[in-house]
Amino acid sequence: MSHRIVCFGELLLRLTAPGRERLLQTGHFDVHVGGAEANVAVSLAQFGHAVAMASTVADNELGEAATGTLRRYGVDTRHIARTPGRMGLYFLSTGAVRRPSQIVYDRAGSAFAAADPDAADWPAILRGAEWLHISGVTPAIGPNGAAAAQGAVDAARAAGVKISFDGNYRAQLWANWDGDGPAILRGLLEAASLAFINERDISLILGQSFDDRDAAYTAAFQLFPRLDTIAATTRTQYSVDHHAIDAEIATRNGHWRSRSHELVGIVDRIGGGDAFAAGVLHGLLTDMPPDHLIEFAAAASALKHSIPGDFNLASVADVEAAVDTDNLDVRR
Amino acid sequence: MSHRIVCFGELLLRLTAPGRERLLQTGHFDVHVGGAEANVAVSLAQFGHAVAMASTVADNELGEAATGTLRRYGVDTRHIARTPGRMGLYFLSTGAVRRPSQIVYDRAGSAFAAADPDAADWPAILRGAEWLHISGVTPAIGPNGAAAAQGAVDAARAAGVKISFDGNYRAQLWANWDGDGPAILRGLLEAASLAFINERDISLILGQSFDDRDAAYTAAFQLFPRLDTIAATTRTQYSVDHHAIDAEIATRNGHWRSRSHELVGIVDRIGGGDAFAAGVLHGLLTDMPPDHLIEFAAAASALKHSIPGDFNLASVADVEAAVDTDNLDVRR
Amino acid sequence: MSHRIVCFGELLLRLTAPGRERLLQTGHFDVHVGGAEANVAVSLAQFGHAVAMASTVADNELGEAATGTLRRYGVDTRHIARTPGRMGLYFLSTGAVRRPSQIVYDRAGSAFAAADPDAADWPAILRGAEWLHISGVTPAIGPNGAAAAQGAVDAARAAGVKISFDGNYRAQLWANWDGDGPAILRGLLEAASLAFINERDISLILGQSFDDRDAAYTAAFQLFPRLDTIAATTRTQYSVDHHAIDAEIATRNGHWRSRSHELVGIVDRIGGGDAFAAGVLHGLLTDMPPDHLIEFAAAASALKHSIPGDFNLASVADVEAAVDTDNLDVRR
Amino acid sequence: MSHRIVCFGELLLRLTAPGRERLLQTGHFDVHVGGAEANVAVSLAQFGHAVAMASTVADNELGEAATGTLRRYGVDTRHIARTPGRMGLYFLSTGAVRRPSQIVYDRAGSAFAAADPDAADWPAILRGAEWLHISGVTPAIGPNGAAAAQGAVDAARAAGVKISFDGNYRAQLWANWDGDGPAILRGLLEAASLAFINERDISLILGQSFDDRDAAYTAAFQLFPRLDTIAATTRTQYSVDHHAIDAEIATRNGHWRSRSHELVGIVDRIGGGDAFAAGVLHGLLTDMPPDHLIEFAAAASALKHSIPGDFNLASVADVEAAVDTDNLDVRR
Amino acid sequence: MSHRIVCFGELLLRLTAPGRERLLQTGHFDVHVGGAEANVAVSLAQFGHAVAMASTVADNELGEAATGTLRRYGVDTRHIARTPGRMGLYFLSTGAVRRPSQIVYDRAGSAFAAADPDAADWPAILRGAEWLHISGVTPAIGPNGAAAAQGAVDAARAAGVKISFDGNYRAQLWANWDGDGPAILRGLLEAASLAFINERDISLILGQSFDDRDAAYTAAFQLFPRLDTIAATTRTQYSVDHHAIDAEIATRNGHWRSRSHELVGIVDRIGGGDAFAAGVLHGLLTDMPPDHLIEFAAAASALKHSIPGDFNLASVADVEAAVDTDNLDVRR
Amino acid sequence: MSHRIVCFGELLLRLTAPGRERLLQTGHFDVHVGGAEANVAVSLAQFGHAVAMASTVADNELGEAATGTLRRYGVDTRHIARTPGRMGLYFLSTGAVRRPSQIVYDRAGSAFAAADPDAADWPAILRGAEWLHISGVTPAIGPNGAAAAQGAVDAARAAGVKISFDGNYRAQLWANWDGDGPAILRGLLEAASLAFINERDISLILGQSFDDRDAAYTAAFQLFPRLDTIAATTRTQYSVDHHAIDAEIATRNGHWRSRSHELVGIVDRIGGGDAFAAGVLHGLLTDMPPDHLIEFAAAASALKHSIPGDFNLASVADVEAAVDTDNLDVRR
Repeated sequence: MSHRIVCFGELLLRLTAPGRERLLQTGHFDVHVGGAEANVAVSLAQFGHAVAMASTVADNELGEAATGTLRRYGVDTRHIARTPGRMGLYFLSTGAVRRPSQIVYDRAGSAFAAADPDAADWPAILRGAEWLHISGVTPAIGPNGAAAAQGAVDAARAAGVKISFDGNYRAQLWANWDGDGPAILRGLLEAASLAFINERDISLILGQSFDDRDAAYTAAFQLFPRLDTIAATTRTQYSVDHHAIDAEIATRNGHWRSRSHELVGIVDRIGGGDAFAAGVLHGLLTDMPPDHLIEFAAAASALKHSIPGDFNLASVADVEAAVDTDNLDVRR
Repeated sequence: MSHRIVCFGELLLRLTAPGRERLLQTGHFDVHVGGAEANVAVSLAQFGHAVAMASTVADNELGEAATGTLRRYGVDTRHIARTPGRMGLYFLSTGAVRRPSQIVYDRAGSAFAAADPDAADWPAILRGAEWLHISGVTPAIGPNGAAAAQGAVDAARAAGVKISFDGNYRAQLWANWDGDGPAILRGLLEAASLAFINERDISLILGQSFDDRDAAYTAAFQLFPRLDTIAATTRTQYSVDHHAIDAEIATRNGHWRSRSHELVGIVDRIGGGDAFAAGVLHGLLTDMPPDHLIEFAAAASALKHSIPGDFNLASVADVEAAVDTDNLDVRR
Repeated sequence: MSHRIVCFGELLLRLTAPGRERLLQTGHFDVHVGGAEANVAVSLAQFGHAVAMASTVADNELGEAATGTLRRYGVDTRHIARTPGRMGLYFLSTGAVRRPSQIVYDRAGSAFAAADPDAADWPAILRGAEWLHISGVTPAIGPNGAAAAQGAVDAARAAGVKISFDGNYRAQLWANWDGDGPAILRGLLEAASLAFINERDISLILGQSFDDRDAAYTAAFQLFPRLDTIAATTRTQYSVDHHAIDAEIATRNGHWRSRSHELVGIVDRIGGGDAFAAGVLHGLLTDMPPDHLIEFAAAASALKHSIPGDFNLASVADVEAAVDTDNLDVRR
Repeated sequence: MSHRIVCFGELLLRLTAPGRERLLQTGHFDVHVGGAEANVAVSLAQFGHAVAMASTVADNELGEAATGTLRRYGVDTRHIARTPGRMGLYFLSTGAVRRPSQIVYDRAGSAFAAADPDAADWPAILRGAEWLHISGVTPAIGPNGAAAAQGAVDAARAAGVKISFDGNYRAQLWANWDGDGPAILRGLLEAASLAFINERDISLILGQSFDDRDAAYTAAFQLFPRLDTIAATTRTQYSVDHHAIDAEIATRNGHWRSRSHELVGIVDRIGGGDAFAAGVLHGLLTDMPPDHLIEFAAAASALKHSIPGDFNLASVADVEAAVDTDNLDVRR
Repeated sequence: MSHRIVCFGELLLRLTAPGRERLLQTGHFDVHVGGAEANVAVSLAQFGHAVAMASTVADNELGEAATGTLRRYGVDTRHIARTPGRMGLYFLSTGAVRRPSQIVYDRAGSAFAAADPDAADWPAILRGAEWLHISGVTPAIGPNGAAAAQGAVDAARAAGVKISFDGNYRAQLWANWDGDGPAILRGLLEAASLAFINERDISLILGQSFDDRDAAYTAAFQLFPRLDTIAATTRTQYSVDHHAIDAEIATRNGHWRSRSHELVGIVDRIGGGDAFAAGVLHGLLTDMPPDHLIEFAAAASALKHSIPGDFNLASVADVEAAVDTDNLDVRR
Repeated sequence: MSHRIVCFGELLLRLTAPGRERLLQTGHFDVHVGGAEANVAVSLAQFGHAVAMASTVADNELGEAATGTLRRYGVDTRHIARTPGRMGLYFLSTGAVRRPSQIVYDRAGSAFAAADPDAADWPAILRGAEWLHISGVTPAIGPNGAAAAQGAVDAARAAGVKISFDGNYRAQLWANWDGDGPAILRGLLEAASLAFINERDISLILGQSFDDRDAAYTAAFQLFPRLDTIAATTRTQYSVDHHAIDAEIATRNGHWRSRSHELVGIVDRIGGGDAFAAGVLHGLLTDMPPDHLIEFAAAASALKHSIPGDFNLASVADVEAAVDTDNLDVRR
């Protein structure tokens, strides 16, 4: 079976303090599987697409559980390699009121970070695929990650597979090694047809500042001839659990902006951006007109904030309902 | 001991995904006992009234637990029959933010739905009662339910017991059999002194549309000479966990409307209508003037939204405090 | 090791119904250690200060656990005596929407209330200390408590240790014995350099009413020559989980008022006042200018509302971040 | 409705550390309702008898929950008075392997202990009853308890109601006041038709020692002419979770001993004696021959060890199955 | 991808009272996915085989979760149809000591029971398979189940796929309709190469009694020429949580019996027989000699008793370790 | 305050699958703090000794929580350094029946393993101490650990502090680097007065085999003139949750062996050896005669098996009760 989308990146275990506690305030963790690209994969599978995940996990029960969780949600996991080592972890203390959520990363030395960048059989993995989705997290992990991301992109270009790139700049990760972040990310962006970046990302990658978002987008379209579509969300935060988001999509033909979604009583904010990326990809895969596409993707991101864990478990029908209606009463 | 109120309807087990999860996102259910009429019974018992529940449950541990739960909260359960079969269930995934709560019903073929409509000894059950409370859910279940509801109403009329009828139109249930919903409900409404219906219910039952709520109420009072009182709430939904409700009561002598209650951070919305019905019945049983009665009933419904499970476990003092004060700080 | 601050008061166990349930709606309690003065001690220890708790607990596993919990958070517990008896308890049903939280006290006859008021070796306990922090809860408990509080204050005066006094008037407790509350509290206030009181407290203690807060403060400064600083918060309640607080500090040289913090989605409101007191003491101990001090203390109180349990587990950096920024997004 | 059995004693809340932890090793308690006489009442109600509980609870949510729990299990709770005060508590750390379970009592000053011994309207409570069941715990609580127990017994004698008395000697409780335990218990035993006592209890009450159990029984039958039946269990402990029990019943006509039940993997040992007492009372109420009666009662006690909480929730059918069969496989 | 094994049967949701409680003693259920044939499928997938499940689930979130759970554990779920209706459920109260576990079935009217017996495209499902595994539970469900089981078997015969048949006689299910159980099961057994039956099953199917197990096996081999292998376990029950099991395999060439496994502290007994069946199938698929095969299968069944839920999540290495060693200490 | 005992080693977080599940069978971990030497420290603190822990933890919330947990249990934590990095973790799936418990280590690259071996100010740490306790785990971690352990031992020798050494050979850890395990351990053993080693440890360190335990002990006493005492337990495993242990102590003057403790229904086996070591140290610190000392230490180890987590939370009284009595019934 060929896949319309292949996602490549690290699977992580997230260990969350329960009930808005601080880490180890009591001795329990709730565990979810996540990772920026895996989150996109799961959401696209919920939307009914054939999706494969390419990754490397630790050859132990934790790696098996992470892989099985993706499989549960319909992602093809045959291209997830298993090597000796450890799983990347992150610890999350979910904030509230005016205390921000806090992440403690523990992903150094993971099986993914240590994986041989040339080990993946990309021609086989990408056979028949329409899109390869990657993010700026993978190259930030270290030299292996940077080489692996570039290798995946090169293979996709060679195979005629379009590239979706989520900027996801993480200063903390880049600080751990001496990679030239902007240059490496630029290498990936050059290959992309679709990019999830905003003016800050573009400034950082191009090393120049812009007056406004439009100017940044114009510069990106000029410099990167393969780039067709740029998408980004804008988030306003009134309180830790009360945000508003809207979203924008820009092509060489125009800009479209979604309605704003008021997000009251947020359950889990992690993965909101990945849910948006999956929404945009779904729109492109199903040839939505851009004005509906951006509404769909924004609603997908809004819905994610209501679901515990990193994954957006909403179906297409769930998202379309969130686009179309303000009837929020119990569905019976 | 005679009862001032008898409630007749099905006891259900509600299986809720914990913590705003989707169903079986993790392998746990929280279980509550509910059912529209049982919810009214429990609330009236908390208000200090002598209440009996008439129903049929499965002759197994689940039926016993459902019955025992009503008894815990002070409802007389001697008129709950036990027959072979299954308990009606419903699965609830509590929504959040902009994802509505979702109910999956699993109540087909329940012991209640299969019960012989003539089995109940209504004269004994109703002896000394002032009110019989029923709802539109029971006839919607199927021919047995419809016959049982009509039988209960006929017995109450014969015994001089006033009838309280909650419209509770559930299209999904009526779709499962070929009963003529409007005609059957009209049969029940004709017997009622008190009805919890709004203009949509009246339109549906009468098969005509109305310009506004007042016109609908006027028509109902004209067509149904036994009807003394109509009560309804109005709900505005800003977000899944942020509503506002107010309530209205209409008699042949006038209309009264409550203040609006802002409901922020809703814990459990299920049973909000039943809590209102119990509040109105309490007002009538204690001869409250209508302007206070509607404030009491609206505050009862508002309080329900703060209590996990289907039951409004508030006392009269709790409700009166919610009517009278805006001091919401910790009570010590 | 000498301590900059000694806190004296009762340790309590708080038994909380889980998940916004009413008490024993299901058969579980979450247990936290608290007590007005212990809460101040823990917060000051999180801020990096050397703090000792002086108290008496039951000589059993519960008393040991309460003591150990303070020690976990860095409080010196060597001056917590252990005597036969019971631990003071309180049961908390956390409210929601428009249902206020409710406390059922069960602290009569505790080891602390029964403790010999002369048992503490105050010179040893206070050696090297800068501040003694007490509250109006201790004398309210009964004659032993009143004598113990006065004894502690006398010892502090003799040792040149400044006194911080939190009014904390609890009518329910004073109602249990025939102590002259205003007179006893006045005795403590006379010794204090720092008082957490508002115009209601002052009116009550002085037995006179005031036109406004300023007038009350002026009267207090006139009557109590040792008093340098008065601090208080003002709380507005829009809903049980949605408050706003700001804070004010008054010295003989001026008044300073903090920004207002909007508190949406409150997790745990208990201990908000104690977190404020610890914030003020931290500001005084570190010689903050009063305009920043009051912002720090208000932000500390605001943060507490996001943390389960009675303690404010925030660090100085956490509080300063809450003062300085409105960036509430995930910290990674 | 008259009751065949009235049980009189204190309702307690048991707070148990979860999962074999020590008290407050983590911050959770599981809560069960118990009390020696309440346990008997619930078990008899499960056996289908009409049972009323006579007691006094605190006039708060905890007392209400304790009362409601008995009602859930079919006990008539109309004779449970509610007075201001506190609920008696006990904290349980369930042992394992070679660490015994440990109870910390916190029942001093409870509403029950403080209750006016003359407040109960015994003629009304006992009307139509066949048995009054009490235990040696009630007089051990203090002078009020001792007077109340004697008052209940006197009323039962006057009303021709037989008395069932469970010795339940608790040295710790008697140590808290200067009551003459043996004399007080003797007063109760003199009135009893049925006594749950063994040779140690008899020695203690009579102040003499016996060569063996038979000699003790003989002495008791001689001294107490009303006494018809003595029953007791014998427990062998191989490990904290592995016991064996058998039981014996003695009348003036003979002795009968049950088979021994090997109890492997004990879930909850509390209430095992009360389950036995209920089993004996059921046997007497249903005129079982003594050889079957003692098997039934021993099996009831054995079953209790498999059920979390203080109550034996087994039905007559469950107990008879445990008497008759060694088929322990899943019942489907 | 072709599968070496196809399992056909119903997926069930099991709702278990937590912690050895009775059903709804407290309001929680732990939920596991199960079903005799699904259990075999999951175990074989853990052993590394390509396994497909053929079934029908309800077209709702519960059916999706059941399907996803099998997929998580590596079972191909593409042949699980989704139709409107309900999921079959069963409620489990796990016993202890001398109280047997109790199952309340709630599977009448499930989507599987109502499924069109001719809907499955068996040639496609069975393409390339070596084994079809079914059980006696499917025909017991009702006429559709009986027809579906026979249809599957006929298709397998036509396709040259060997049939594995687990007797699993459930009198309760057969009692719900007028099917001729023995005749229907005989029809399935006639087609089987491998049967999990003991002397009681054979007696029932053949309608004759046997002196011993050997005589029954001999008769079965004579009557059913396609039958190559019969396998069965023998279970001794010392207490609810303490069993011993051994196992036997018989072919036309001989009998082999495994060592006996002492099972102390059983965690979950459900699925022990299915784990055995998967062990035997694994042995046949990997051409184990019969003496090792029966040790492997017995050890697989023994291991299942240590794993919560219906599935045996042990790997081949786990099982081989349980065959070979008595070193039970922590593996680090 | 000086300490009678200093323990040096790594603090670990243990993440345990709940309820005998496999890792991530459901998404929860219970978290405990552990580490061989920390376990000894906590047990000695429970026995009333002044104990300090010397270690290095990650400079984040997890390190703080681990440190605070030791402090809760009375260990002086001032000598626990905090450096950037990660906490060592291990994942535990608790076995049952015949499935052994399984540990997945994730401790590579921890802050402790990376710590500068010369950073500790040993003269200050050891000032006034009687014993330094270390184990063979620390040098096994890598070159830094080996250097740090030797440095600690050298400092202790220089300061006249006796050394307690627990062999704790972990082949898995030594396999991760090229250290010469036997030589390094021999260096530590040469310095020790007390060693927890058995004949296998001695064989490994000396590179020779012995006919029996006595011969090994004799050789050790000959080769290591500073060695006064050797202690070891012997464990027999009937099933994963049913062991028996006894213990032996050897000095240059004789051998003493404890009674055997039957351990039925083991709750948590981790830390059983560390509890034994703490028991021996307590015996030496309190000058117990060796025959009682070995009974005390064996009973301490036996008790540990009943307590969740890595720590033996038993008091001296608890242990003495386990030595002296077989009365295992509820203590009330």
